[in-house]
Amino acid sequence: MVEMGEKCSVVGLFNVPEAAKFAYFGLFSLQHRGQEAAGIASSDGEKIHLVKGRGLVTQVFDGEKLELLTGDSAVGHTRYSTAGEDSVLDAQPIFARYDLGQIAVVHNGNLTNAKEVRRELIREGAIFQTFMDTENLIHLIARSQKSQLYDRIIEALHRIEGAYSLIFLSRRKMFAVRDPHGFRPLSIGKLKEGWVVASETCAFDLIGAEYVRDVVPGELVVFEKGKEPRSIQVFEPTPHKCVFEYIYFARPDSLIYGKSVYELRKAMGRELAKEYPVQADMVVPVPDSGVAAALGYAEASGIPFEMGIIRNHYVGRTFIEPTQSIRDLKVKMKLNPIKEVIRGKRLIVIDDSIVRGTTSRKIVGILKEFGAKEVHMRISAPPTTGPCYYGVDTPTKEELIASKMSVEETRRYIGADTLAYLSIEGLLRSVGNDQSYCMACFDGDYPVEKRE
Amino acid sequence: MVEMGEKCSVVGLFNVPEAAKFAYFGLFSLQHRGQEAAGIASSDGEKIHLVKGRGLVTQVFDGEKLELLTGDSAVGHTRYSTAGEDSVLDAQPIFARYDLGQIAVVHNGNLTNAKEVRRELIREGAIFQTFMDTENLIHLIARSQKSQLYDRIIEALHRIEGAYSLIFLSRRKMFAVRDPHGFRPLSIGKLKEGWVVASETCAFDLIGAEYVRDVVPGELVVFEKGKEPRSIQVFEPTPHKCVFEYIYFARPDSLIYGKSVYELRKAMGRELAKEYPVQADMVVPVPDSGVAAALGYAEASGIPFEMGIIRNHYVGRTFIEPTQSIRDLKVKMKLNPIKEVIRGKRLIVIDDSIVRGTTSRKIVGILKEFGAKEVHMRISAPPTTGPCYYGVDTPTKEELIASKMSVEETRRYIGADTLAYLSIEGLLRSVGNDQSYCMACFDGDYPVEKRE
Amino acid sequence: MVEMGEKCSVVGLFNVPEAAKFAYFGLFSLQHRGQEAAGIASSDGEKIHLVKGRGLVTQVFDGEKLELLTGDSAVGHTRYSTAGEDSVLDAQPIFARYDLGQIAVVHNGNLTNAKEVRRELIREGAIFQTFMDTENLIHLIARSQKSQLYDRIIEALHRIEGAYSLIFLSRRKMFAVRDPHGFRPLSIGKLKEGWVVASETCAFDLIGAEYVRDVVPGELVVFEKGKEPRSIQVFEPTPHKCVFEYIYFARPDSLIYGKSVYELRKAMGRELAKEYPVQADMVVPVPDSGVAAALGYAEASGIPFEMGIIRNHYVGRTFIEPTQSIRDLKVKMKLNPIKEVIRGKRLIVIDDSIVRGTTSRKIVGILKEFGAKEVHMRISAPPTTGPCYYGVDTPTKEELIASKMSVEETRRYIGADTLAYLSIEGLLRSVGNDQSYCMACFDGDYPVEKRE
Amino acid sequence: MVEMGEKCSVVGLFNVPEAAKFAYFGLFSLQHRGQEAAGIASSDGEKIHLVKGRGLVTQVFDGEKLELLTGDSAVGHTRYSTAGEDSVLDAQPIFARYDLGQIAVVHNGNLTNAKEVRRELIREGAIFQTFMDTENLIHLIARSQKSQLYDRIIEALHRIEGAYSLIFLSRRKMFAVRDPHGFRPLSIGKLKEGWVVASETCAFDLIGAEYVRDVVPGELVVFEKGKEPRSIQVFEPTPHKCVFEYIYFARPDSLIYGKSVYELRKAMGRELAKEYPVQADMVVPVPDSGVAAALGYAEASGIPFEMGIIRNHYVGRTFIEPTQSIRDLKVKMKLNPIKEVIRGKRLIVIDDSIVRGTTSRKIVGILKEFGAKEVHMRISAPPTTGPCYYGVDTPTKEELIASKMSVEETRRYIGADTLAYLSIEGLLRSVGNDQSYCMACFDGDYPVEKRE
Repeated sequence: MVEMGEKCSVVGLFNVPEAAKFAYFGLFSLQHRGQEAAGIASSDGEKIHLVKGRGLVTQVFDGEKLELLTGDSAVGHTRYSTAGEDSVLDAQPIFARYDLGQIAVVHNGNLTNAKEVRRELIREGAIFQTFMDTENLIHLIARSQKSQLYDRIIEALHRIEGAYSLIFLSRRKMFAVRDPHGFRPLSIGKLKEGWVVASETCAFDLIGAEYVRDVVPGELVVFEKGKEPRSIQVFEPTPHKCVFEYIYFARPDSLIYGKSVYELRKAMGRELAKEYPVQADMVVPVPDSGVAAALGYAEASGIPFEMGIIRNHYVGRTFIEPTQSIRDLKVKMKLNPIKEVIRGKRLIVIDDSIVRGTTSRKIVGILKEFGAKEVHMRISAPPTTGPCYYGVDTPTKEELIASKMSVEETRRYIGADTLAYLSIEGLLRSVGNDQSYCMACFDGDYPVEKRE
Repeated sequence: MVEMGEKCSVVGLFNVPEAAKFAYFGLFSLQHRGQEAAGIASSDGEKIHLVKGRGLVTQVFDGEKLELLTGDSAVGHTRYSTAGEDSVLDAQPIFARYDLGQIAVVHNGNLTNAKEVRRELIREGAIFQTFMDTENLIHLIARSQKSQLYDRIIEALHRIEGAYSLIFLSRRKMFAVRDPHGFRPLSIGKLKEGWVVASETCAFDLIGAEYVRDVVPGELVVFEKGKEPRSIQVFEPTPHKCVFEYIYFARPDSLIYGKSVYELRKAMGRELAKEYPVQADMVVPVPDSGVAAALGYAEASGIPFEMGIIRNHYVGRTFIEPTQSIRDLKVKMKLNPIKEVIRGKRLIVIDDSIVRGTTSRKIVGILKEFGAKEVHMRISAPPTTGPCYYGVDTPTKEELIASKMSVEETRRYIGADTLAYLSIEGLLRSVGNDQSYCMACFDGDYPVEKRE
Repeated sequence: MVEMGEKCSVVGLFNVPEAAKFAYFGLFSLQHRGQEAAGIASSDGEKIHLVKGRGLVTQVFDGEKLELLTGDSAVGHTRYSTAGEDSVLDAQPIFARYDLGQIAVVHNGNLTNAKEVRRELIREGAIFQTFMDTENLIHLIARSQKSQLYDRIIEALHRIEGAYSLIFLSRRKMFAVRDPHGFRPLSIGKLKEGWVVASETCAFDLIGAEYVRDVVPGELVVFEKGKEPRSIQVFEPTPHKCVFEYIYFARPDSLIYGKSVYELRKAMGRELAKEYPVQADMVVPVPDSGVAAALGYAEASGIPFEMGIIRNHYVGRTFIEPTQSIRDLKVKMKLNPIKEVIRGKRLIVIDDSIVRGTTSRKIVGILKEFGAKEVHMRISAPPTTGPCYYGVDTPTKEELIASKMSVEETRRYIGADTLAYLSIEGLLRSVGNDQSYCMACFDGDYPVEKRE
Repeated sequence: MVEMGEKCSVVGLFNVPEAAKFAYFGLFSLQHRGQEAAGIASSDGEKIHLVKGRGLVTQVFDGEKLELLTGDSAVGHTRYSTAGEDSVLDAQPIFARYDLGQIAVVHNGNLTNAKEVRRELIREGAIFQTFMDTENLIHLIARSQKSQLYDRIIEALHRIEGAYSLIFLSRRKMFAVRDPHGFRPLSIGKLKEGWVVASETCAFDLIGAEYVRDVVPGELVVFEKGKEPRSIQVFEPTPHKCVFEYIYFARPDSLIYGKSVYELRKAMGRELAKEYPVQADMVVPVPDSGVAAALGYAEASGIPFEMGIIRNHYVGRTFIEPTQSIRDLKVKMKLNPIKEVIRGKRLIVIDDSIVRGTTSRKIVGILKEFGAKEVHMRISAPPTTGPCYYGVDTPTKEELIASKMSVEETRRYIGADTLAYLSIEGLLRSVGNDQSYCMACFDGDYPVEKRE
C-alpha cells in the first residue's frame, strides 16, 4: 500500500511480426508501473510510427491506432505521473528526426545530472520541447560526431548520470541499455525468431516469450536483423539495484534481477518474523502488495495467515464527497477489513512500507474500530528516511514520517500496539545478502549524487 | 473464476441527508455484482429524480449528475448484463407515475412467472416498455384497488413468484421486500438517524452504517419518517437462500444471511480437504474468489498455501488480437502463474466452480506449461448441473460441463491429474447444516417452478 | 433568428431495404428541427429494434448501432429539448410490447388534453414511465378492445386532442396520421418499391425519394406489404396548419403543405415591402432564416439586397466567459455585421420574428456600433402575442414582448429607427390567402383549447 | 465550395487580462481556417503554459483547461489538416525551453526551404520532434549568438523562405512577423490597454477589438509592456499577397490586406458578369462561399439573384453508407437545390473555383436532375492550374482539372451548358488592379521557388 510511484515501464520488440500489438500486450502486463500515459513507436524499416496519449494502455490504444503502428520492431512505455498542463507532451516514446535518420526512445529512471546536461545543451543551442530528462539523450546522440548510432549512444551515456533502463529504436535496429548501477530492471526474452526487452518478465509470460537473461548493469545490447544480439559492456558494472522493486513495485509473478519477486517477498516476511516476533492470533496482509510477505511471516511464526482485509479493485477516480462526510473515505474505498475475522483478535498486520504515515494511521484506525484487540504493524522493509533520485516518485524528505519521527513516535502516530520494520540486514538476507543493492532511501548512502 | 453472473445489486437509503451520494458509494461497494449499468433515484419529498446509464458506477455518475438527485431518500442499482440493443432502457431503477403518485423500484432476482404475469397484464391492456421482469410489479401496484401503497405491494407480491429482493421508493416512504424463499440477500443497517438497505453488508462498511439484521424471507419492511421501521410478514418464510452467494458472488468481507462469507468459504475449503485429500506440495487458489477456500484447504490439510497464480486487475475490454495469436490470451490477461513457485511442484488448485470447463482447461494448461508436476483441481462447490432461475445469469443446461460429463470425463477434458468437487453434504456442513439453502443448480430440486 | 423551437421531426420508411440507414439520413436532413436527442426503431418483421440517445443524429448513431437496426421498415425522431434529468427516457421512438405484439411510435406535436387523458388512464391503472404526451397514445391503443391495430389507432385518436403528426411502426405495418387540424406537416414520398413519410420534403431529396403528397389533416395512411397505401379519413379535415413552418421552422428547400417554403418566404418579404416601405440603402437579412424574405423585400422595393450580416456556423456550446466580459457575446458568436458594407448606410433589416426582444436589441446595437446610419427593422410575420400549444416550444405570454409592449414601445426597446411587422392579412396573402392556417400565436384564436 | 484548405489561423494577445480566454474566442472566429487541431499558449510573466489537442476549438478547450492558461499574453492556433498518426504532436503552438528562457510560436504559412534548412540544422546536431516547418524557426533562434530575442528572430528570418505569418510569445514579450511577400494576412488590433494580432479581422469584432492596421510584409512588430509596439522593417516588402484569401478562404466579414472580402467578392462577380454574360433566368450561388460573387454577378447583369441551393450546416463526419447507395451522398448531405425555384429555369451558377471537378460535376448533375433547364457555370476565379507552396493545402498539379483539361473539356466533364472562369485581368481589376498579389496557382509565376 505504498504511496510512492515508479515512474514507468518500458518494453521493446525486435524482429517480431506485428510488433506493436505485442508491445501493447506487454504494456498491459506492466500497467501497474504507470497509469497516467502510454505510448508505442514502431518501425517498418523505412519510417518510425508513433502513437501516445493519456490514460491506461487500453484507453490510449484501439485496433485502429494499432493498425497505424506497422512493422516488426517497436518500443513502448507507460508513465506513472506527468507534471504540467499538457501531459501528452510528456508521454513517451520520444521521437525525433536527426542526422542519422529517425529515432524513438523509452526510458525508465531519472538522470541525476539532467538539469546540468540540459543547461549545457541549451547553451550550445539545443531546444527542449518536453519536461522529460530523456530528451537530453536524443540531443547528445544527435550532436555526436560518431558515424555509428551505437557509438553515439555510448558517447551520450558517458555524459549522463543516474538511473536509466533505456530502449532505443532506429529504423532498422534496437538498442537496450542499463546504467552501470543497474538501478532499474531490464530483462531480455526470446519470442520465436525475435527478441523482447521489458522492465519485468511478467510481460514475457503474457506474450509467450522465454526469459533469457537480464541486461547487465552498464551493458548495451544491440539488436540487428540476421545477427545474434551483440553485447557491449559500456561501463564496468557497479551494481546498485533498486531493492524497492522487490519490496513493492514489481508484480510478484515477475523475475527481477533474475530472482522471483514473490519468493523474496516471502523471505522478507520470514526475516521479519524472526526479527520481530509477537504473540498474536493471525497474520493479516495489507493487500495486494503485503500478501507474500505476510505468507512468509505466517510460515516462519506459525501464526495463521488470514486475508482479513479485502481490496476493492474497482477504483476509479472520484471527486465526489458528501458534505456529511464519510470518515477515511479514500482508504475505505480501497480496503475493507472483515469484521467477523478480526473482531477481538490480536493482529499482525503486514505492509510493505510507511511513507507519510497517514494511510497506516487510517488502516489501524479502521481495524480498531472494527474490533481488532491488538494491531501489531510489521513493515517488510526498513524505515524510508530519504527520497529516491533514481526513478521513483517519492515525497520530499520532510514528508517521510521516518525521517522526522522515531519508530516509537511513529507507532504512537499511527495508533498501533507495536510497530517494527525489517532491518537493513534482514532485508539483505532476504534478497541474497550480496552488496549489489541500492539502499539509499533507507540508509542515505546515495551511489550517485543528485545535481541541480 | 466463475463465468456466471449475478444480475444485480440494490441499495436504499432513508432519512439520510444527501441520500444519493451515499447510494453512490454503496453501489461502488457492490460494483462486483454488476458492471454493465447503474442508476439511482432519489426523492426530495415532492418529486422523484432519476439518473441511470451504461457503465460502472463511477462512469455513470459525476458530481453534476449527483447534484440533480436531491432529497434524503434514494434507491440504487447495478446491473450485470443487459440484453437488447439499447440497454439504457433496461437499466434500473424503473420509475413511474401512477395513481398514487410517483414510484421507483430496484430489483435483484428473477421472477419465475414473469412471462405469465406479463401476458395477463398485457391482456388487460398494460404496455411494457422494458424487458425487465420488474416492470410487472409496478403494473400490479398501479392496478390494485387498495388505497395504501403497502397494501398494494402486498397484493402484487401475491401475484409474483420467484426470486426478489426489492426496494420501492415513493415520495415519502421506502419499502424493502424479500421473497418468501429469501433467494437473494438483503440486509438492513442504521446510519445515524436514518436507515440503509443493501444487497451486501460491505456497502454498510464504506458509508459507516451499522448492520442491524437481514430482511426476513417473506418480510416487507416499511420506512416512514418519524417512525421506527415497521415489519409486515407477508408470507410464511420457506427459506431457500442462494448458496452460491457464499461460494462465489458476495464479497468475502460481507455478511450474507448474517454469516461471514469469508469464514464460510474457508469452511468449504476445510471440508473439501477432508473429503478429497491428496498428496501435494502446495495449495494454490484461482484468485480472487478461490483464496478463502484455499486457505481453508491448506489449514485442514497442513499443506502450505501459496499465491501461485497472480491476477492482473487492470482488465479492460480489448478487441485486439494479433493475427500471430497469443495462446489463451483472455485467461492470460487475467491470470499468470508464478513459474518459480510452481515449477516441479504438485499443486492443489482451488477454484469455486467449473461452468463450461474451457477456462479450467486453460488454467491447467498454463500451469503445466509453466512446469507444474501435478495439478489436482479441487472445486469448493458441487458440480453445477442445472441453470438458475432465481437471478443468476447461468449458461443453459447444455453448456454446463457437469450436466453432460462425469467427473472423470471432465478431469480428462480439463487435463488435471485429479479432480474433485465438494459434496452437497460437505457444502451443507460448511454453511451451517440447516435446510434453508437453495441447491437447485446442484441437485435439480427447484423450489419454485419456472413457467413460460 | 427566432428563439422558439419546434419540438421534433419524424421520419418513417416502409419496404425499403436497410430502412434504418435511410432513416438516419432522413433525420440528418431534419436535424434543424431538434438537436437534443435522436432515435430510430426498425422492424425486421419479427422484432422491433430500438436505439436512441442524447445529441445530434451523427452523435447518437454510428455504423455499429445502425447495424443493430435490421429490417426494411423504420421510424425515426429528433427532439428539440428535453426536460428533466435523464433525458434519454424522454427521447423517441417510444417502444412497447402490448397485446397485439410490439409497437414503436414517433410524434411531432403536443396534445392539448394530455394531462386529462393521462389522469384518466392513471385512474384506470396505467403507469407512465416518461414525461412525453405520446405515451398516452400507446396506452389507449393497448387498452382498446378492437382486434385490428388500425381500428385501435382510430379509437385512440378520438380520445386525444391537439397537434399530432404521428408514425406508428408495428412488426409488419406502418401507419402515418395527421390531426384533423393538420397543425404539423407530414409528407409522403416514394422510394423505389417502398414508401417514406417525413416532416419535411428535404428528407426526400437527400435519400432520393419522390414527393407524392401530404398526409391530409385527419387522415390515417396504412402501409402494408404487397398493397398500395390505404387511406382512412378518420376525421373531417378542419385545417389549421401552422404558418410558422413557413415563417421560420422549415428548411427553405422543403415543400410544406405542398408549397415551397422559399417561395412563400419571398412572398412575405414582398408583402412586407408593400405594407411598410421605407427609404434605405440596402436590405439586409438576419441569417439564415431571414434571407428569403429579405430577397422578396429587395425585389419588391427595388432596394439592393446585401448579406451585411455573416453567420458563424461553428456554434458549439460554450460555458466560458471572461470575467472582463465580451459585450453581447452570445449574439456575436453567431452573427457579425460587415462594417465596410453597413457603415454610414440606411439599413432595412429583415428578421422572421421578435420573441423576447433581447436578441433584436443586441443586433440593432451591434449594427449601430458598427456604423449603420439608420436601422429599419422589418419582421416577416405579425407580432407574436401568444404561446403555442401545438408543438412549438414558446416562452410564456409574459415573456413575449409583443404581448406587453406596443410596436412603438418595442421599437424604442430594441433601438431601431423604425419597426414594422407584416400584417396578418399580408401574411395570408403571402401563403395563399385561404383560411386553412393556424394564426393563434398572432391573433389568439386557438382552434383547440389547452386543458390542464 | 473549394476543396482546398488553408493550413491555419493564428491569434495573439498582449497585455490583456485573461488573454487565453480572448484567444479562445478569437480562434472560435477563425475556426473556418482549420478544424483539425487547436492550441493556446499563455504567459504569466514567469512561465509559459500550453494546451493543445485535436478537434474544434470548443472541443479542445473547456473552462478547466482555460483556467490553466494564466497570464495576460497568449498565442493561439487552429490547424487545417495534420499528417501522420499522432497529430497532437503536430498541433501548434510549438513550445520550447532554450538559452533565453521559454518561447512559444504559432505559424500560418509554409516555408519553401524548410527541408533544406532542416537538413542543415540536423547536420549541426538539431533534433526534430514534429513534422512542422515551424520547428526550424525555434532551432534557428536557439542557435543564434545574438543576446536579444528580436535580433535572433531577425537572424532566423534571414535563413527561411516562403510564406509565414508568425507570432512568437516569450515570457514577457510578443512578436508578430509577416514574410516580405506578405503571402498570408496578419492584422493588428487594439483591445483596451492591450493589443491583438490575428489572421483575420473578424476575430477583432467578436472580442471587441479595433482594427488598427496590417503587419506590413517584411515587418516585425515587437510588443512590450509599458511601450508602444515597435516596428522593425526586416525586409524590403515585395508584396505577393494570396489572392485566394479574397476568393475563398477568408470570412466575408473580415478585412484582408485592409480591404473588405465581401466587397471584393462582389466585384469579382461583377467582372465575371461583364466578361461572360449569358441569357438566364436567375443567378444562383453555391453556398456559402459563392454568395457574394453571385450578388455581384446579379447586380451587374440585372438577372435576379436566388438562393436556389441550400446548405445543411449540420455536417458531421459520417462513415455510414447504405449498400443500396444514395447517389452523390456527400454533396447532397451539404447542398440541396430547391426544386420549385430552379425547375425549368436557366441558371447561372456561381462557384469560387473548380479543383478536381468531381464536386462541380455532382452539383450540375443534381441541378439537372431537379429540373434545371440550363446550367451556366461561372467561376469567380481563373482556372487553378498549379499547386500552392505558400500555406494552402492543394492537390497535386496532376489532380487539378484545369491543368489537364481545356475549359471546353472541363465543361463537358462537369456537364454544364456553358462554363467560364474570371480572367486574371478581371480578377486583378476586382481586387484593386495593383501588382501586389500572388497569382502563382493561376499563372505559374511562383515568387519563391520550392526547394526539396
